[in-house]
Amino acid sequence: MSGLFISFEGNDGAGKSTQAELLKKHLSEEGFSCCLFREPGGTDISEKIREIILDNANYKMKHLTEAYLYAAARCQLVREKIMPALKGGQIVICDRFLDSSLVYQGIGRGLGTDIVKDINKYAVGSLKPDLTFFLHLDPAEAINRHKDERELDRMENQKAYFHNRVYRGFLDIAHGESERIVTVEANRPLKVISAEIARIIDSFINGRGLQNEQLKRFFGQ
Amino acid sequence: MSGLFISFEGNDGAGKSTQAELLKKHLSEEGFSCCLFREPGGTDISEKIREIILDNANYKMKHLTEAYLYAAARCQLVREKIMPALKGGQIVICDRFLDSSLVYQGIGRGLGTDIVKDINKYAVGSLKPDLTFFLHLDPAEAINRHKDERELDRMENQKAYFHNRVYRGFLDIAHGESERIVTVEANRPLKVISAEIARIIDSFINGRGLQNEQLKRFFGQ
Repeated sequence: MSGLFISFEGNDGAGKSTQAELLKKHLSEEGFSCCLFREPGGTDISEKIREIILDNANYKMKHLTEAYLYAAARCQLVREKIMPALKGGQIVICDRFLDSSLVYQGIGRGLGTDIVKDINKYAVGSLKPDLTFFLHLDPAEAINRHKDERELDRMENQKAYFHNRVYRGFLDIAHGESERIVTVEANRPLKVISAEIARIIDSFINGRGLQNEQLKRFFGQ
Repeated sequence: MSGLFISFEGNDGAGKSTQAELLKKHLSEEGFSCCLFREPGGTDISEKIREIILDNANYKMKHLTEAYLYAAARCQLVREKIMPALKGGQIVICDRFLDSSLVYQGIGRGLGTDIVKDINKYAVGSLKPDLTFFLHLDPAEAINRHKDERELDRMENQKAYFHNRVYRGFLDIAHGESERIVTVEANRPLKVISAEIARIIDSFINGRGLQNEQLKRFFGQ
């Protein structure tokens, strides 16, 4: 048994972080050992890299540099946290993963998904989410959600056409990998969305033959 | 005319920074337009990445993460500073470049030079130093030079066998690329070393047909 790897994807403001938290709560209540990380971030080193990526002062950052920094943060997170947790049989939830780089740097920045995949190949190795929730929300509505709460970061502050390209990129990737990526309409009340995600994950876990009791025995709980 | 790209390589403490400064002074006095960068660093963003790489607090850094961070810092430096300077016909001096990653991460850390080269391929593109000075000094002597001056950083603080591997790595690379890499004995007085480097560079520039007056006209000085 090797744990489960779940990621959340979508435009900034689509509600990924909230839904990831709610899923963690749901799975923990069901008795699963579960951890949640955000990208870029999730380790001390990756959080420091996050600061560089998102700081508005770093407006001179080249697109390729940005791709390398995301890969660096991801590399540390995968090796320091995700792989050990999965090896320990835990459920790992990630608020963004490689799909975000393919879409933001590959499509949004125009580097191309092949180059971004290539840059990330040593960072992720063969690791891939077992299941990905794509929170689908109109990009204009998504970015407006945070606008009045706090200062937007360097990525959020990109122009509307960038967020539109990112949005269409996610649609393409979700379409191309419909086996792995579940599209969830995010323009609904939080609880309706979280209930739908909980139903999907419960059925997925049952389909994989992972029973809570089995997992508990494995963890020695 | 596309400028000249010169790098300095060698173990920590071999005297690269001092000799790079002295070479810049020499070339400027000869009338060349010249800039000097250090790696990792040389741009605001790359200096921030440098802090993460060298901070002793980041002892959990995985070798691959380290390789990605050096590539990220280099990517920004190449695109923001080195390429524009070379296109403007300037002489660019770099205190470390790709060779250091091949040796430190590829050989010292044991990632292998092929993987490190592959990680760096989008960062450097086809850019390669025209001439590289390898400052050759026994690694034990080199690292001792800084020991009493200041606190050693995370890379300098590596164990002796790491610095020995780095040293042997530089020897191998210098041997394999003797057309580009000039080995300079660093266990001599500063002025003797800098005079030797100045002689080599002057002859190299003459060999390339770059005359000071020509360069001056090109720069519009």
